[in-house]
Amino acid sequence: MAPPGKELPYAAKISLTTPAAEQSCLHNRWHPDNPSVTTIPLNTATKIECVDWTGGQIGNNDSADDILNVDLTRVHYLTGPFDIEGAEPGDLLVLDILDVQPLQDQLWGFTGIFDKGNGGDFLDDIYPKAAKAIWDFEGIYCSSRHIPGVKFPGLIHPGILGCAPSQEILETWNTREAELITACSHMDRVVALPPEPQSVHAGSASAEIKEKVGKEGARTIPGRPEHGGNCDIKNLSRGSKVYLPVHVKGAKFSVGDLHFSQGDGEISFCGAIEMAGVITISFSLVKGGMTSISKNPIFIPGAVEPQFGAGRYIYFEGFSVDEHGKQHYMDATVAYRQASLNAIEYLKRFGYDDYQCYLLLGCAPIQGHIAGIVDVPNACTTLGIPVDIFDFDIMPKADVDKKDMGVCAKTS
Amino acid sequence: MAPPGKELPYAAKISLTTPAAEQSCLHNRWHPDNPSVTTIPLNTATKIECVDWTGGQIGNNDSADDILNVDLTRVHYLTGPFDIEGAEPGDLLVLDILDVQPLQDQLWGFTGIFDKGNGGDFLDDIYPKAAKAIWDFEGIYCSSRHIPGVKFPGLIHPGILGCAPSQEILETWNTREAELITACSHMDRVVALPPEPQSVHAGSASAEIKEKVGKEGARTIPGRPEHGGNCDIKNLSRGSKVYLPVHVKGAKFSVGDLHFSQGDGEISFCGAIEMAGVITISFSLVKGGMTSISKNPIFIPGAVEPQFGAGRYIYFEGFSVDEHGKQHYMDATVAYRQASLNAIEYLKRFGYDDYQCYLLLGCAPIQGHIAGIVDVPNACTTLGIPVDIFDFDIMPKADVDKKDMGVCAKTS
Amino acid sequence: MAPPGKELPYAAKISLTTPAAEQSCLHNRWHPDNPSVTTIPLNTATKIECVDWTGGQIGNNDSADDILNVDLTRVHYLTGPFDIEGAEPGDLLVLDILDVQPLQDQLWGFTGIFDKGNGGDFLDDIYPKAAKAIWDFEGIYCSSRHIPGVKFPGLIHPGILGCAPSQEILETWNTREAELITACSHMDRVVALPPEPQSVHAGSASAEIKEKVGKEGARTIPGRPEHGGNCDIKNLSRGSKVYLPVHVKGAKFSVGDLHFSQGDGEISFCGAIEMAGVITISFSLVKGGMTSISKNPIFIPGAVEPQFGAGRYIYFEGFSVDEHGKQHYMDATVAYRQASLNAIEYLKRFGYDDYQCYLLLGCAPIQGHIAGIVDVPNACTTLGIPVDIFDFDIMPKADVDKKDMGVCAKTS
Amino acid sequence: MAPPGKELPYAAKISLTTPAAEQSCLHNRWHPDNPSVTTIPLNTATKIECVDWTGGQIGNNDSADDILNVDLTRVHYLTGPFDIEGAEPGDLLVLDILDVQPLQDQLWGFTGIFDKGNGGDFLDDIYPKAAKAIWDFEGIYCSSRHIPGVKFPGLIHPGILGCAPSQEILETWNTREAELITACSHMDRVVALPPEPQSVHAGSASAEIKEKVGKEGARTIPGRPEHGGNCDIKNLSRGSKVYLPVHVKGAKFSVGDLHFSQGDGEISFCGAIEMAGVITISFSLVKGGMTSISKNPIFIPGAVEPQFGAGRYIYFEGFSVDEHGKQHYMDATVAYRQASLNAIEYLKRFGYDDYQCYLLLGCAPIQGHIAGIVDVPNACTTLGIPVDIFDFDIMPKADVDKKDMGVCAKTS
Repeated sequence: MAPPGKELPYAAKISLTTPAAEQSCLHNRWHPDNPSVTTIPLNTATKIECVDWTGGQIGNNDSADDILNVDLTRVHYLTGPFDIEGAEPGDLLVLDILDVQPLQDQLWGFTGIFDKGNGGDFLDDIYPKAAKAIWDFEGIYCSSRHIPGVKFPGLIHPGILGCAPSQEILETWNTREAELITACSHMDRVVALPPEPQSVHAGSASAEIKEKVGKEGARTIPGRPEHGGNCDIKNLSRGSKVYLPVHVKGAKFSVGDLHFSQGDGEISFCGAIEMAGVITISFSLVKGGMTSISKNPIFIPGAVEPQFGAGRYIYFEGFSVDEHGKQHYMDATVAYRQASLNAIEYLKRFGYDDYQCYLLLGCAPIQGHIAGIVDVPNACTTLGIPVDIFDFDIMPKADVDKKDMGVCAKTS
Repeated sequence: MAPPGKELPYAAKISLTTPAAEQSCLHNRWHPDNPSVTTIPLNTATKIECVDWTGGQIGNNDSADDILNVDLTRVHYLTGPFDIEGAEPGDLLVLDILDVQPLQDQLWGFTGIFDKGNGGDFLDDIYPKAAKAIWDFEGIYCSSRHIPGVKFPGLIHPGILGCAPSQEILETWNTREAELITACSHMDRVVALPPEPQSVHAGSASAEIKEKVGKEGARTIPGRPEHGGNCDIKNLSRGSKVYLPVHVKGAKFSVGDLHFSQGDGEISFCGAIEMAGVITISFSLVKGGMTSISKNPIFIPGAVEPQFGAGRYIYFEGFSVDEHGKQHYMDATVAYRQASLNAIEYLKRFGYDDYQCYLLLGCAPIQGHIAGIVDVPNACTTLGIPVDIFDFDIMPKADVDKKDMGVCAKTS
Repeated sequence: MAPPGKELPYAAKISLTTPAAEQSCLHNRWHPDNPSVTTIPLNTATKIECVDWTGGQIGNNDSADDILNVDLTRVHYLTGPFDIEGAEPGDLLVLDILDVQPLQDQLWGFTGIFDKGNGGDFLDDIYPKAAKAIWDFEGIYCSSRHIPGVKFPGLIHPGILGCAPSQEILETWNTREAELITACSHMDRVVALPPEPQSVHAGSASAEIKEKVGKEGARTIPGRPEHGGNCDIKNLSRGSKVYLPVHVKGAKFSVGDLHFSQGDGEISFCGAIEMAGVITISFSLVKGGMTSISKNPIFIPGAVEPQFGAGRYIYFEGFSVDEHGKQHYMDATVAYRQASLNAIEYLKRFGYDDYQCYLLLGCAPIQGHIAGIVDVPNACTTLGIPVDIFDFDIMPKADVDKKDMGVCAKTS
Repeated sequence: MAPPGKELPYAAKISLTTPAAEQSCLHNRWHPDNPSVTTIPLNTATKIECVDWTGGQIGNNDSADDILNVDLTRVHYLTGPFDIEGAEPGDLLVLDILDVQPLQDQLWGFTGIFDKGNGGDFLDDIYPKAAKAIWDFEGIYCSSRHIPGVKFPGLIHPGILGCAPSQEILETWNTREAELITACSHMDRVVALPPEPQSVHAGSASAEIKEKVGKEGARTIPGRPEHGGNCDIKNLSRGSKVYLPVHVKGAKFSVGDLHFSQGDGEISFCGAIEMAGVITISFSLVKGGMTSISKNPIFIPGAVEPQFGAGRYIYFEGFSVDEHGKQHYMDATVAYRQASLNAIEYLKRFGYDDYQCYLLLGCAPIQGHIAGIVDVPNACTTLGIPVDIFDFDIMPKADVDKKDMGVCAKTS
């Protein structure tokens, strides 16, 4: 008999039964003073477990009440930070993402649309209610009882990964986002999330440090150019190589918000298929790489991706004229909204309701492209849906057999 | 001996020596009253020749003076309009794009950056000067003496294709764009192009019709959601199937602005490789398709595309924090600017100057994705450069051998 | 906290410490009387564990003595057979292969070249000695201390899968292979493996049944057209759909010989990366499908494959003229041998020795094509090596830096 | 107006109305004494026109009588030979294939099955009659009135390309093929084609040279390992890079037998879509490359290929048990025959007759793989058909709607 081998080392394991706020390997703010969980050696495949980004607030059931009432101060628990052997400010930390998998004893995830009054999202003025779809994982595939007729392989990836900001960068973030909040005070919506002491979690930090992190720590929403963070790039999957700027000694790398799948844009706020899981990474360094290569994150996707075939997508166009007919100036965000709305309208012909379509566009492997961005005043974007994720034919035809597609999880 | 076959029929041939404004198969405004060039039968491969979008104003030389002084009222000459057999308002006109080729006796094209004072473009506050690169075509490949070290296959496509607007739609366009011009009167830039009688060309129209077209006709910049038009989608290449809404009897289909290649976004205004060429299309109809399928253009790309391999792209991230450190709210346009600037900075390490990089990003087959568009306040976009279009290694490494890359065409 | 989900059901679990011959869920002959392990319901993701095909005879060490002395009567232990709910002769059993993974506590595998005197293989007249490479798995990637400079993602798949033969089909197999053995008695090599009572394992069968299986049971080498079996198709990976003829009630499906990766042809006999692992399958049926669809196995590969890019392969040509200059008539086997030898010769320039190259071609994701098979007397085959599995440049250049590549495991 | 550019230079133009045997830029034997047509400079895109491989014997009509009666001594007219600037024996001639196109005034081609009594081919014992399909080209697509329901983009390529043999290599060829003919004298078929003075064409050669070429010149069927020649590799299309051994001063490069499309194996002898056309090549040299790189031809396919998607093929398996149930020993040729027959059987369900299926497998972009070649006694091959070339659904289903598919061209 061959001697059994040994499993890969874990830098952190999480618990699905202990509250996230009580697990010392987790934290939910970006801050240089978050205490390091451990030091990870270079060039060693290392496993890191992550909770889902709500820290377990969402249940595998048919009600969206948990989405409606989600506590948004208690989300985005990241695993880490980890010191990486030898990392110093000015280096680029290089990640070889060797694998990303769901936890074997929790083979499901969820996609949510937030209520406009609690979180909101990309199309919340049109679809203001909370909704949810539960996805079951079978090997590399997922399917949902809430969106029948669809099955696809996950391009599994982390939504958030980055190194800690230096104190100086942290101040830059807080200043510029505060200025935006001030400038947009007339707008009837949350435009940015300032530091928030409520529900702060700083891992194993002392009370004093935790208070400091609460006051100053940057929220894990959004991504930021200096370190990447919450970038939500659907292609950062198995086999990807990521180069991240290092701003503090040891890098203090954190990762979380794993997605079983996501569409370009992750158009509902909680749009990817959120899950608890484990990521396997091998770290290395380019010393001084921020000077010699890039000050900002760059990446090279892996060679292993679903190949649907170039001709197996239906593409929808979106221009920067909004659904009320108003002309915007070169606004790619408005344009992508329109491409999304056109796609939703198309899918409804097959029997899906609006919220099912909206959920699907957030999490299926949709391609979202910036097509033309120079012809004033209309930015043009495109959104491509792979036809082979459906178990019926969605190619453009005049006669469509409308089916009974049930409903997604709704609020009671 | 086998009997020689016959060539495919031409719906229109253009001249490279007669001014575009004198060719009756061309026009440069969208208007329902442009006279039809001819009627094209259904399900018949038909060739249509097109001039380059400047109508021949740009020369194959090493000066960008022609770009600097380009007459922007005399551009975007489209071939058509063509009546399509049996097309009626409410139908979808289906195009099978069978081929797109440069004209065999003009095997070159150009990419231009407009002067900020005459046209301007995506990054004109940073790169205000005119510049140009001439590209030579060798089979499916192109290369430029102005950007050495690069060679790539063209994903050849039309930048503009669409059916004529109805009078009602035309009025909608003019109204909403006029409102934008009024609303943005404080901005120091051209935000939209209103109807312009100067240099109007309405094909074989009578003086009366031509005057009407000049007064009311919509400019060919930008694309618009009701008919597509100037969509600049780099993937509308050989093998694509396009579904276009029909608004007038006969459809009055026009096409032009052929690109040998383009990057997502076409980030310099004249960013694609502009060329004169010939497109082969077979037309068909979905009767009433605007009701049964889609009110907006949709398309399915062809199966024949360059396959660089998923892992052969370097991706740059861009967030909606601009280069001055200012925070914008969920602005994908700002975010894509930043991804572009990061990519330019990266390429400069190899010896290219800013304008060479800028030109290259506009025309090489760059992938521009909307990654995350829900994490307030930062939209995240990505821009991927295929590494295999370079004849040297551009993968991230600390030590780079800076080369002498010459210069692109500049103004005198 | 979300309630933990449940793992997928297992139809069989294997032990790495109990001899394969003592595990009742395994067997090593094809025979209709092998007792069924259990019944698997339709449309249910089901996990099945498998030993490596030598049943654990090969160790994770640097000697090839275990390969040299491998007991070939004790190999190819398959897991099963399983009754599939409702399957009857004449049906097609449809497998959705949802996932294939190595066992988490044995993250390594091996590639072997058999000694010419014990097993032999494709090139054994040129490379007669035993050799071995151990591969370590890191997520979806593998690398080997015995073949440095190489790392690639596994297209993980089962080498063997099929339903049990009926008694009638079994007799057909035994008759036709016996005839070949007789016809080839002049050849100095094993041309087929007849039934062999030695080391037969029939799962939980009674002594009587076991004796019958030993006398009549078909060996698991080779694949056979009536059921597939040992087909060694490298693309039967995650996401594949396989249609297998059913010959007995319940189908009696078996699977084994999992490969982390394999090249087309698996040119060394034990050429894939052999491993113990777990496959996740969902079964369904096409009733009467052998009549209405196909009498032979067919399959549709999954959409998730490594995408190296069409232009990232070096292809070698092989014609049916052998290495001694002898002309063979339209022999694609000879031709593929030549393509293999040409590829080995090419790779040696970089410092690898013959056996390292030979091992690599067996297990890396090599493309082996039948190019031309009608131009008498030369069949033409091609063998493509993906250049991106090497961490140095192997593109054709005159000047090559020969490196110290160490050695693979050899016999003592 | 921009000045018109100039077309690429032609090294040779052919005539469609003059008999091939009278055109001095053509020849139909491999011999070092064929006079050079012209000298082609290095690094210059150069166009070379080619006749179809029958030199125009086949007509665009609905009878296969021309195939039945084809004169096989008057086929495979190649264009050339061309001296390449600076090429010397021992070099590798490097071809960048920039484009391959049909002639614009003959936009059709043909696929033929030869009569068993005149040429024969891969399956001639089962399908002994002559048959033909005419294909019409529309841009990059082809379709045939003889095989309705199918349309696909051409992966256009040359079937034959190579440098002239030296006198010594020529003698090697003649000797080894003569030995095969002797050894196979008991077989009831043509196993190789010896030199044949009848209908020899040696371009502009003197009578004396022509006589020598007739006596000694190697036939253009088959490909040979020393120079490639008639390799029929379907992927040698636009963007490919080919490295060819040089055996005589100037290389004396020839090319011909252009295919609009071909399946792996080109299973009917005249199986590709044969056409007259033009190939654009840029030549360069690796001096001494036969020593430093490879003695045999190697190539790197282009990045531009039809991408049908990994999961959009149906694969058929073939083992080395023939259709009479006879067991062969590791014979990949027999195995590929079986895969072909299984595929034909499958396609017949949709209404095609045998000959239509056989023609289609020869010319559509079929993938033919050597799957397993070590499990005695059965070689396993696979043949994959892209489902997206059909305008109806050919995915495996029990209920099939058999259509009226007409017939291919047959003999009168």
